[in-house]
Amino acid sequence: MLLGKVIGTVWATRKDDQMVGMKLQIVREVDLDYREQKRFVVAVDSVGAGVGEIVLVAQGSSARQTDLTRNKPVDAVIAAIVDKLDVA
Amino acid sequence: MLLGKVIGTVWATRKDDQMVGMKLQIVREVDLDYREQKRFVVAVDSVGAGVGEIVLVAQGSSARQTDLTRNKPVDAVIAAIVDKLDVA
Amino acid sequence: MLLGKVIGTVWATRKDDQMVGMKLQIVREVDLDYREQKRFVVAVDSVGAGVGEIVLVAQGSSARQTDLTRNKPVDAVIAAIVDKLDVA
Amino acid sequence: MLLGKVIGTVWATRKDDQMVGMKLQIVREVDLDYREQKRFVVAVDSVGAGVGEIVLVAQGSSARQTDLTRNKPVDAVIAAIVDKLDVA
Amino acid sequence: MLLGKVIGTVWATRKDDQMVGMKLQIVREVDLDYREQKRFVVAVDSVGAGVGEIVLVAQGSSARQTDLTRNKPVDAVIAAIVDKLDVA
Repeated sequence: MLLGKVIGTVWATRKDDQMVGMKLQIVREVDLDYREQKRFVVAVDSVGAGVGEIVLVAQGSSARQTDLTRNKPVDAVIAAIVDKLDVA
Repeated sequence: MLLGKVIGTVWATRKDDQMVGMKLQIVREVDLDYREQKRFVVAVDSVGAGVGEIVLVAQGSSARQTDLTRNKPVDAVIAAIVDKLDVA
Repeated sequence: MLLGKVIGTVWATRKDDQMVGMKLQIVREVDLDYREQKRFVVAVDSVGAGVGEIVLVAQGSSARQTDLTRNKPVDAVIAAIVDKLDVA
Repeated sequence: MLLGKVIGTVWATRKDDQMVGMKLQIVREVDLDYREQKRFVVAVDSVGAGVGEIVLVAQGSSARQTDLTRNKPVDAVIAAIVDKLDVA
Repeated sequence: MLLGKVIGTVWATRKDDQMVGMKLQIVREVDLDYREQKRFVVAVDSVGAGVGEIVLVAQGSSARQTDLTRNKPVDAVIAAIVDKLDVA
């Protein structure tokens, strides 16, 4: 999974019918000190992550393995909110 | 999903039979200020996005989860048209 | 899909049984002016593309959604031959 | 598979129900001399790898082909612990 | 598929049960003149490729479409040994 930080939200009223009601969060990649990197991804939020939280994003077909996203045209999902990292 | 801007259209008469009738849009990656980046992808349009619009593109097997693209050799689909971003 | 140009062919007699009879083309990425980039991919040709033609390549599991490639160890397929691009 | 080194652990109490009980390891890419590279990934551990060990990580849908990860929103799994490399 | 050169072997005794008996080869990307690039991948060998041979590697779910790798946590497989390239 990708380590990232929720930095905002996407508003989109015209979308595939299967995406109605999904919260779309902007997640920027971070390094192990939570410093923001250049790359970001738009991910569906399945765990109630708020702006500023550090999260794990699952991508590809794995993003469709939650109740919210199953069989939907979604390639990134926030699967966990990070409490802390233990780095050796 | 990838944040991008529709910048053009691809014309292709010789193609896999399953792709007949699909609109193929050129989508260039943008940053959070909608500035165009170098990378682009050719995506099937499932939501009627026009040139100049900001969109979300789902890639990989997730691109086949729309009525239009199911079971087809398509690895990128425009799944939503973006109204605006709220960035913290 | 990836925009590319067919620049050659791969000959491989020893291969997975399921790949016998497939034409393997070398496709180099191009930009919107058809200028060749550094990256290339080896793709199965399902549409009869010749050397020099501009094509669209579908990658990942989507590359297995043609009659020729279904259930085979193939991760890139030429799905269309491009006639022209309309770029705004 | 990706060659990497386990350098730490992620703690995440709020996560998708299907991820409960999974150990989440931080794996940094290494080169063939085991020198750490910039990129890292968070992977589920299915083989009991400890911090400092060199491992192979399977990504994408292949990460869901272990007993522990089947049908779960997981896109990276530690599938093997490396004893040594023989490089020509 | 990725064009690469087999440069070595990975030894791993502790691994997912489904990977027992698989030969794991280190494949370094090459350009069209077979010059080695920086990136490499560890791939299961399904065709008996030896060190020094030029090969095609299928990645992602396509890597699981051989008899040897079906339903296993494997995201890269050597699917063909290259005899030669014809580049225009």
